[in-house]
Amino acid sequence: MIVTIDRKYGSGGRLIGEKLSKLLGYRFFDRELLKIAAQESGMHEDVVQHFDEKPTGSLLYSTYLYATLPVTDALPLNQKLAFAQFEVIRRVAEEGNCVIVGRCADYVLQERTDCLNVFITATNPVRRQRLIQYYGVPEELTEKTIRKQDKMRAEYYNFFTQRKWGDASNYHICLDAGRLSLDGAAQLLADAVHQLEG
Amino acid sequence: MIVTIDRKYGSGGRLIGEKLSKLLGYRFFDRELLKIAAQESGMHEDVVQHFDEKPTGSLLYSTYLYATLPVTDALPLNQKLAFAQFEVIRRVAEEGNCVIVGRCADYVLQERTDCLNVFITATNPVRRQRLIQYYGVPEELTEKTIRKQDKMRAEYYNFFTQRKWGDASNYHICLDAGRLSLDGAAQLLADAVHQLEG
Repeated sequence: MIVTIDRKYGSGGRLIGEKLSKLLGYRFFDRELLKIAAQESGMHEDVVQHFDEKPTGSLLYSTYLYATLPVTDALPLNQKLAFAQFEVIRRVAEEGNCVIVGRCADYVLQERTDCLNVFITATNPVRRQRLIQYYGVPEELTEKTIRKQDKMRAEYYNFFTQRKWGDASNYHICLDAGRLSLDGAAQLLADAVHQLEG
Repeated sequence: MIVTIDRKYGSGGRLIGEKLSKLLGYRFFDRELLKIAAQESGMHEDVVQHFDEKPTGSLLYSTYLYATLPVTDALPLNQKLAFAQFEVIRRVAEEGNCVIVGRCADYVLQERTDCLNVFITATNPVRRQRLIQYYGVPEELTEKTIRKQDKMRAEYYNFFTQRKWGDASNYHICLDAGRLSLDGAAQLLADAVHQLEG
């Protein structure tokens, strides 16, 4: 089975994914996807790091480019990177059980019937606390950072998928990581995977 | 603990709530709230049935009424009923463990720290199939029925809560009842309640 996990910034979604992969004995992909995609697309990792999960230009602009130029020439760097990641996502899914964090994996793998698509949220106070404690963000910048990062993730997701980031309809399970614990959330997801496997 | 369950039309959310209440040995409230609220507000049950979870007029209009008339005189019947239900929701929550379906219970009880707020979704094909099989809706009317009922629930919820119905941020757990089974979803929710109690 493939578990895809999207997450609000600072919600602990990546950690839940990591814990889940250990509970299940699954491979775990987060930034690794970036590294592989960078290598395969001939871009340098440091450069592409900058563009990871960043929103791209308007759909109108890219439609114009698609229509007027050869695709690979027309695509801005962040779109090239995204498509390279999507290819890697398809391949690692093909290779078997794994947990994949972010990067529209739910959408990229939508034709598969063996996915469990997850979204992790948490309230702003919980996320602000995590930013201060684990990311070293000064308290007065936490609200702005959360707003900005969520906005980028939403734009990235909405652009490529034409869906609405964080709408419960897009996912099989959404969890509030503040109401449950990170371990508790990972355990519930493992239970769900076992249910679907059984 | 109080479990509130909101749900897309035809998703099986009410049945999941009923199964969950049995697994936990909790009281279950759905239409019962309506009956109690009708009795207490002096409205006839048949009349209020018609207004249950129906959208109300614009916020602007009701703000105008609030500002100019005594509240109880100013409120349209569906708002009177909603507020009567909210009172009943607060009281049954006060009385102890229960599962409450719909009627903005998550919002009404937001000050409590012992709630688990749930939203149940399912894809349109799954819901259409349920409508045909269990509600006797002719196939050609299923899509329209789903759209109309979801719209009413969303307007009702958004009006009273000023939140967005179905946005994962509003709930602690959202589940796709088509991807999981109804029994499986109820079991996962029971697991979550046990986690929070433990």
